[in-house]
Amino acid sequence: MVAEGSRTLQRNEVEALVREVLTQRLRGQVNPPPARERHAEMPFRAGGPPNPLVVNVSARHMHVTPEHLEILFGAGAKLTKLKDLYQQGEFASEQLVTLVGPRQRIIPNVRILGPTRNYTQIELSYTDGIYLGIDLPLRISGNHDNTPGITILGLKGAVNLDRGVIRAERHVHMSNDDMAYYGVKDGDYMKLKIDGPCGATFDRLKVRFHPKVILEVHIDTDEGNACDLETATNMELTK
Amino acid sequence: MVAEGSRTLQRNEVEALVREVLTQRLRGQVNPPPARERHAEMPFRAGGPPNPLVVNVSARHMHVTPEHLEILFGAGAKLTKLKDLYQQGEFASEQLVTLVGPRQRIIPNVRILGPTRNYTQIELSYTDGIYLGIDLPLRISGNHDNTPGITILGLKGAVNLDRGVIRAERHVHMSNDDMAYYGVKDGDYMKLKIDGPCGATFDRLKVRFHPKVILEVHIDTDEGNACDLETATNMELTK
Repeated sequence: MVAEGSRTLQRNEVEALVREVLTQRLRGQVNPPPARERHAEMPFRAGGPPNPLVVNVSARHMHVTPEHLEILFGAGAKLTKLKDLYQQGEFASEQLVTLVGPRQRIIPNVRILGPTRNYTQIELSYTDGIYLGIDLPLRISGNHDNTPGITILGLKGAVNLDRGVIRAERHVHMSNDDMAYYGVKDGDYMKLKIDGPCGATFDRLKVRFHPKVILEVHIDTDEGNACDLETATNMELTK
Repeated sequence: MVAEGSRTLQRNEVEALVREVLTQRLRGQVNPPPARERHAEMPFRAGGPPNPLVVNVSARHMHVTPEHLEILFGAGAKLTKLKDLYQQGEFASEQLVTLVGPRQRIIPNVRILGPTRNYTQIELSYTDGIYLGIDLPLRISGNHDNTPGITILGLKGAVNLDRGVIRAERHVHMSNDDMAYYGVKDGDYMKLKIDGPCGATFDRLKVRFHPKVILEVHIDTDEGNACDLETATNMELTK
């Protein structure tokens, strides 16, 4: 596809290559990433915490209202399940959107997570934000005060979202049992220590209580890649 | 550019938009990032360390041999300076290349850092590696044992590099004064603690000694974005 060594490459050849790659991607011929691909888990041990420590990396994704879903994918559109997520009832859908940022740069193949919600939200990494030219605010899901918008393209239409684009604050989902074991309450901050070749400790991991969740830490791709979560040799959650 | 609300967007409109964006980027009409954009520094204080603690984020970049430079930019090509870097004699050049990975995905506008070296090396983040489909090895600059290659496009030609694509291991450049103050030696690992809204501590920061360097920590964009270096309220380097 590209010549060895010193052959001169013509600009039109480069442009043709670029066009081909982009067209492929637009047509979905390049596999988009699942929404929560990377994962690390500490084995359960008797006498330890009530639930195993599970850390999942959230890749960029979207939550959507039923109304926006119909604009993007046509009247009557419903989210269809690609894969269950760790929390019961939540799933990665088959639906993908393309984001167009203020500098006209695009990010294709952004997955919608289901079920639909009463707000539309785009969760990106700072790497994505810098690429798109958006100064992302750090927010807990659903807090859209002073957040920027973005243009979203679906198969059937476009939405100019006026707010709801955030970097999700790193957090840990906990039930009452988990909070009792770790001695924390909803809204507290904890630390997550990851040992390994790219070892790191993340401070300010926010506790998010819900009676029906399973213990699960969510970090984004910048954080998961910074510590190379996949090569973690040990993980620890502390106050 | 994109319709409000519910207007149906035709596939050919989307394709035209994508083509336009890509062509713009290829022509350099979208500003490529400088190679070491983000930066944080602790003020100098009397009685403190001999040199202020400076942390710089290395965006993806390339080091190049004179031979490869001539293949990419034509016979007799020299690197021209865009901007001095923190270490004396090092600079971000005006020359940019495009990377083509094994999945035919491309990353344009990758800056070459000068001066030329006796090896060609591409330093990427894990985010970049996942995007391109390259399983990046963690290496200190210049160690190319068992490292993958990549296709590099310049304005005048292409190089199929057979090895030298790495994630650079996070490191701190130190002179003798710095090592004496912190009580460490070349090759030791230190910790870098960043306080702030996305606070984190990076373990395994490798000490790299050179008699003529100025104290400087290099982390990559995944690490810089994970801790949101720009909003750091305090930084500390410890054993």
